[in-house]
Amino acid sequence: MMDWRNDRMRVKALMEAKESAGEVFVQGWLRTVRRSKGVTFLALNDGSCMSSLQIVVGDNSPAFAAAEDLGTGSCIGVRGEMVASPGEGQAWEVQAAEIVVYGATDESFPMQKKRHSFEFLRSIAHLRPRTNAFGAVFRVRSRIAHAVHSFFQERGFVYVHTPIITANDCEGAGEMFRVTTLDPDNPPMIDGRVAWHEDFFGSKTGLTVSGQLQGELFATAFSDIYTFGPTFRAENSNTSRHASEFWMIEPEVAFADLAVNCQLAEDFFRYMVEYALENCQEDLAFFNQFVDKGLIDKLEHVIKTPFQTMTYTDAIQRLQNSGQKFEFPVEWGCDLQSEHERYLTEKVVGGPLFVTDYPAGIKAFYMRRNDDGKTVAAMDLLVPKVGEIIGGSQREERLDVLQHKMREFDILPESLDWYLDTRRWGSCPHAGFGLGFERFLMYITGMENVRDVIPFPRTPGSARF
Amino acid sequence: MMDWRNDRMRVKALMEAKESAGEVFVQGWLRTVRRSKGVTFLALNDGSCMSSLQIVVGDNSPAFAAAEDLGTGSCIGVRGEMVASPGEGQAWEVQAAEIVVYGATDESFPMQKKRHSFEFLRSIAHLRPRTNAFGAVFRVRSRIAHAVHSFFQERGFVYVHTPIITANDCEGAGEMFRVTTLDPDNPPMIDGRVAWHEDFFGSKTGLTVSGQLQGELFATAFSDIYTFGPTFRAENSNTSRHASEFWMIEPEVAFADLAVNCQLAEDFFRYMVEYALENCQEDLAFFNQFVDKGLIDKLEHVIKTPFQTMTYTDAIQRLQNSGQKFEFPVEWGCDLQSEHERYLTEKVVGGPLFVTDYPAGIKAFYMRRNDDGKTVAAMDLLVPKVGEIIGGSQREERLDVLQHKMREFDILPESLDWYLDTRRWGSCPHAGFGLGFERFLMYITGMENVRDVIPFPRTPGSARF
Repeated sequence: MMDWRNDRMRVKALMEAKESAGEVFVQGWLRTVRRSKGVTFLALNDGSCMSSLQIVVGDNSPAFAAAEDLGTGSCIGVRGEMVASPGEGQAWEVQAAEIVVYGATDESFPMQKKRHSFEFLRSIAHLRPRTNAFGAVFRVRSRIAHAVHSFFQERGFVYVHTPIITANDCEGAGEMFRVTTLDPDNPPMIDGRVAWHEDFFGSKTGLTVSGQLQGELFATAFSDIYTFGPTFRAENSNTSRHASEFWMIEPEVAFADLAVNCQLAEDFFRYMVEYALENCQEDLAFFNQFVDKGLIDKLEHVIKTPFQTMTYTDAIQRLQNSGQKFEFPVEWGCDLQSEHERYLTEKVVGGPLFVTDYPAGIKAFYMRRNDDGKTVAAMDLLVPKVGEIIGGSQREERLDVLQHKMREFDILPESLDWYLDTRRWGSCPHAGFGLGFERFLMYITGMENVRDVIPFPRTPGSARF
Repeated sequence: MMDWRNDRMRVKALMEAKESAGEVFVQGWLRTVRRSKGVTFLALNDGSCMSSLQIVVGDNSPAFAAAEDLGTGSCIGVRGEMVASPGEGQAWEVQAAEIVVYGATDESFPMQKKRHSFEFLRSIAHLRPRTNAFGAVFRVRSRIAHAVHSFFQERGFVYVHTPIITANDCEGAGEMFRVTTLDPDNPPMIDGRVAWHEDFFGSKTGLTVSGQLQGELFATAFSDIYTFGPTFRAENSNTSRHASEFWMIEPEVAFADLAVNCQLAEDFFRYMVEYALENCQEDLAFFNQFVDKGLIDKLEHVIKTPFQTMTYTDAIQRLQNSGQKFEFPVEWGCDLQSEHERYLTEKVVGGPLFVTDYPAGIKAFYMRRNDDGKTVAAMDLLVPKVGEIIGGSQREERLDVLQHKMREFDILPESLDWYLDTRRWGSCPHAGFGLGFERFLMYITGMENVRDVIPFPRTPGSARF
């Protein structure tokens, strides 16, 4: 029941205790201070769980004087007896015998007892982890990140750190950030253009938008691999769903076709939701109560419902025959908009839905051409209330088809010679998908702005902290 | 014993089987093809383990014709009977009844049977995972990454994704890469200098050199946190130990002094080495035989040896009294060089050694000033054969002392107002350390060049793949 440090006890362990541990020592920050006649109540939180521990300081306690100056936000240590709490809402409390004040505070502390908007708290992102909501968000983020690794490691996948700085400019969709060490005020120029060969890496480089291409290289050696790392988009879009820096999970599996890929995505998605329901109960209960009523029902429903599969061509037909008015017109060849995706998953099938086999023209160059010549072996997983949450495909493993496709997409095959080498020697069918980690966190927590599930979000105009 | 996909069996599971699984289906790449009269032997590797599976194709097998064209590097699937192997070195083999060829190869495949130098293999980093050595390196990298998470999660630490793009230019030592979306050929200028406020984030930004400052913010909410992410150095140094992009692990612990920090570092280091010895046996045996003879002895010795502690001042005295000739002179105030560190850990104590309390002038601004006014509460863990492998400190939690220190280091306190806020309201003593993930991997594998433990290394002049 003790901590890795044997001189203190975490609040979580104390709250979950079946019997009193006797004299305990706890440390943390005060969420509230409440004074009544002859007794002071302190709510001490140490981040190990949502709940704060009630500290009771009676006026006969040697700690009573020390408690006099404490305010919301103070940092203290308390030694005292752990006793059954007569109050409601907690099993245990601590009767303080000794208080150590590590860090005082004053009324300028921006997070006094009253509730603050998420917008305001974003402006003090360095302090917001000390609130209930963001304490919960970042504990869940940590647990779910571990769940990602556990899922794949249990299945023998190899974790690959794909590079962040890249010289490829065709990795996927999206604008790239440039990475450079050239003198910004006076870069070396040739014929009026920057001489990139004099830059740090001897070429023009940027921040990766996806680890997929390099992940594929590793899949052709280890068979089953996954990446989990930061990716970047230099898009000047200020929406609640887009950040310039976010984490992606990208498994890649050799000898897999689209069906195996869908199976893996379904197993993964279920595992993650179940993991959250089992391991983040207290935090999810908070979100369910204050952020997104019905959240837990939604999560429990999604893992009980069979995942269905429908081709893009079928989906288009279902949308066209629905009689529903959509803002964006529906016709074969168009990209599915969020309204279409949500209609399909919410109204048509009432649960998670894989849409497969999209038109080649609206998907990336590396997706495998189907025999019809018009579609590619792509798949998107749509879920109620969100729409697309996972996107993937079988990859084109035929060298000649891939080279042809690259030229069609105006990508010089020579620029990705190393990528093509995997098709040149011992090529194998393979498939994979990507899940935006933050998008999944928004799904699990009900938080509606991506800036509220990233510790220190980077968005256009903002790289503070 | 079956795989997450129930239509195939991984080579690792097959090799470890206690009894035959009967008819099996395996998929992978051929490491060697050996033909003798009436029978062909294929060594099939699927990346799940170092060992390749022997496939026996007799001339009475329907697969015999398919095996005729196979060469090193081919990608195939094999269905056949798993039987006890009469040959040496393996318990099981598979008698092929059917062979599916996914990807042929030819003699231009750069990795034929002969051994290649690590230098050569670096030039084909996209193919080298298919060799024994790099298969082992990247399997170990994956397992050890998981061990990092397991260690901290088991102890209730919160994993924090600190930002990659940062507007702080004083995070730590080292030159930074700039991140920008301004038109490189024609950036907006004011008075002959780039107008950074027009850049994507509204200010000059770069790639992080450390997540520590942001980690500290989270430690003042969750108490125990860790980071594990990529960090960057734009240093133009071409050594075997420096990469421009590498992964760091940085735990940060509230209510910890230097002694608790050392305890955590020792527990962590032992855990990781023990984890490798237990979970990466086959791969470590390979390194022990071919890369670094004595490796396993070294690792077993280090976890059996008590970790010792010595102040920097004592260490200087021991070095000065040693009678040893050093290339770099030893005097109080100097930075310890690798030769000094190795002498201390190898000759003076013969095991892992924490050196503590370094002169303030050679350490970072955020380290806590000791009462002597001359030293700071820093610690480095030195290990035999390497020297420094972990560096950390208690952080300065006193607002006035920290502000004073920042000015001494020519850092404007206003530029880190958010960092100082944690000392302003509810400040707490805290400490942490950093471990370079690649440096640890070099220690565990015996690989001598950092480029050989990173999937696609970034170094000056090189960002290929």
